[in-house]
Amino acid sequence: MTHNQPPKTNSYAASGVNINAGIRAVELMKAAVKSTHGPEVLAGIGAFGGMFDASALKAMHNPVLVASTDGVGTKTKAAARVGRWDTVGQDLVNHCVNDILVQGAKPLFFMDYVAAAKLDAVQVSTIVSGMAEACKQNGCALLGGETAEMPGVYHDYEIDIAGTIVGVVDKANAIDGTRIREGDVILALPSTGLHTNGYSLARKVLGELDWARHYAQLGSSVGDALLAVHRSYLSEVSRLQDAGIGLHGLAHITGGGLPDNFPRVLPNHLAGVFHAGAWPVTPIFEMIQELGRVPDAEMFRVFNMGIGLCVVLPKDEAQQAVALLGEGYLVGEIVKRKSEAVIIA
Amino acid sequence: MTHNQPPKTNSYAASGVNINAGIRAVELMKAAVKSTHGPEVLAGIGAFGGMFDASALKAMHNPVLVASTDGVGTKTKAAARVGRWDTVGQDLVNHCVNDILVQGAKPLFFMDYVAAAKLDAVQVSTIVSGMAEACKQNGCALLGGETAEMPGVYHDYEIDIAGTIVGVVDKANAIDGTRIREGDVILALPSTGLHTNGYSLARKVLGELDWARHYAQLGSSVGDALLAVHRSYLSEVSRLQDAGIGLHGLAHITGGGLPDNFPRVLPNHLAGVFHAGAWPVTPIFEMIQELGRVPDAEMFRVFNMGIGLCVVLPKDEAQQAVALLGEGYLVGEIVKRKSEAVIIA
Repeated sequence: MTHNQPPKTNSYAASGVNINAGIRAVELMKAAVKSTHGPEVLAGIGAFGGMFDASALKAMHNPVLVASTDGVGTKTKAAARVGRWDTVGQDLVNHCVNDILVQGAKPLFFMDYVAAAKLDAVQVSTIVSGMAEACKQNGCALLGGETAEMPGVYHDYEIDIAGTIVGVVDKANAIDGTRIREGDVILALPSTGLHTNGYSLARKVLGELDWARHYAQLGSSVGDALLAVHRSYLSEVSRLQDAGIGLHGLAHITGGGLPDNFPRVLPNHLAGVFHAGAWPVTPIFEMIQELGRVPDAEMFRVFNMGIGLCVVLPKDEAQQAVALLGEGYLVGEIVKRKSEAVIIA
Repeated sequence: MTHNQPPKTNSYAASGVNINAGIRAVELMKAAVKSTHGPEVLAGIGAFGGMFDASALKAMHNPVLVASTDGVGTKTKAAARVGRWDTVGQDLVNHCVNDILVQGAKPLFFMDYVAAAKLDAVQVSTIVSGMAEACKQNGCALLGGETAEMPGVYHDYEIDIAGTIVGVVDKANAIDGTRIREGDVILALPSTGLHTNGYSLARKVLGELDWARHYAQLGSSVGDALLAVHRSYLSEVSRLQDAGIGLHGLAHITGGGLPDNFPRVLPNHLAGVFHAGAWPVTPIFEMIQELGRVPDAEMFRVFNMGIGLCVVLPKDEAQQAVALLGEGYLVGEIVKRKSEAVIIA
């Protein structure tokens, strides 16, 4: 390096990266993030890595850490159109919570990643505060994260968010589908809408509509229907566990829909039969299918079609489970597999 | 949903998302990912969340999980220009390893996130295989991840990668800088180049050059200098620990350079003095500064300037540490703080 005073200077800001916006976003979100920190969180924001006291794991017979990374896809583009940034963070956290919940794990902490061409401190802090809100609801610490400014990688005004959740389950309590038996029934817990999948297709089909206008068939505006927050099923699954209901398998219905996600929990020799009509398809899906003339098979592969979580349980415990939760639909059963692992009949 | 045969159909592929490219990428990277899996990894690719047996933590007095999320910024754009995709994954993993290493933690597992406007299965699998390679070198499992296709969010042919590492340290062995004393010395371990920071400025300044041409002052091409892999300091720190060297503080020099990163490990009443000239500035930084006429202060805030890791240790152990590692420079010392926490003199 030289110590000469240069006649013309280059700066990081001139190259499109604004370190201060990142610092300001951290300031704005600090209180929300801190509110998720119980006594297990040992280091504050600013340390290189977040520290989480895992002494509680010593009381487990065989603690297994379960981790999942996910994003919300182009739901951020729907959020941008509506101009609402407080919900996508909740979507992301709840999605991740469900992804480890289906293996029996309860969340310990969450790490976030937010990237854009140019960071808007208020937007980023609103998104991260939404994550913090969902973390609190799920009893999970928002332990740390990263914000990145990448001019030239992202389109202007576009943003991507992703996150990683880490949870724990005692090995004997892990749920992996191996207890699923022929004759078990499938309890479907309703989704709130698209959750975090299928937004590219939904935006394409619904793009020309007025998203602020109330539609009677939706009971809301298109914007509200599209931004409905991805549900966490943590409390529902916990209630079933506390009641001693046999949870033979759990499947979180995300990208790929029932055909791709339900088999992930099924032993190879079994199949799940879903009876169309046994659960209400969320109105937003009917609207998308009608307007876009999307074939059924495509709808089921892209969208959850109203089912956010599948619980596979013994037939004789099914009614008790529905009564306990006060919601849910018995939508099908487990049969011997002949060809497809998922049959929508 | 309707069961009518629609006269014109919409499909997810038509809306720009190709689920099959993601599936193909997973197939291609499967072997590399699996090669990082020791007996602790309980579930294979395809489960909703990766499962990591944490029984070993029970032998610790007070296990603390340490987690960090990071990206490689626009180093991906440099990789794209050179057309080399096997190194950015290594950059990412090593960056994350260092971020928890400075708190004394050793890595357990890593989770990745790869997103683009359109996924190229070969490109994604090459990137993730690079991550797997680095995970193996650091004794860390590549436990899971997510690939996302987001047309309209990313520019065409652009890609973003991020990752989260989770490691563990027994609380008594955690390094948090509180043992740093006036008179301690700073041992600098060399970086290989930019590591993962400052690429927006570097690309702006070096953009017009021929990146394939050999430059004598670099001892390589610009492309090779820019893509030099971010070093992991895990084995160096482990060797110092095994030898009983007192590691009072460790700082990973990333975005924000020495002025932003070194203070993160310093008690408030202390400052670090760095003697310019006491370590060799990597040639690529000299080239950037000369061509871009970048002021010294900006250089030090954007780049690591040749120092990848700062080790703060007792003065009387410093020579032993250098001899043990066979590398490193004693670049400064800890003094009482008067104004700035970092003084480059």
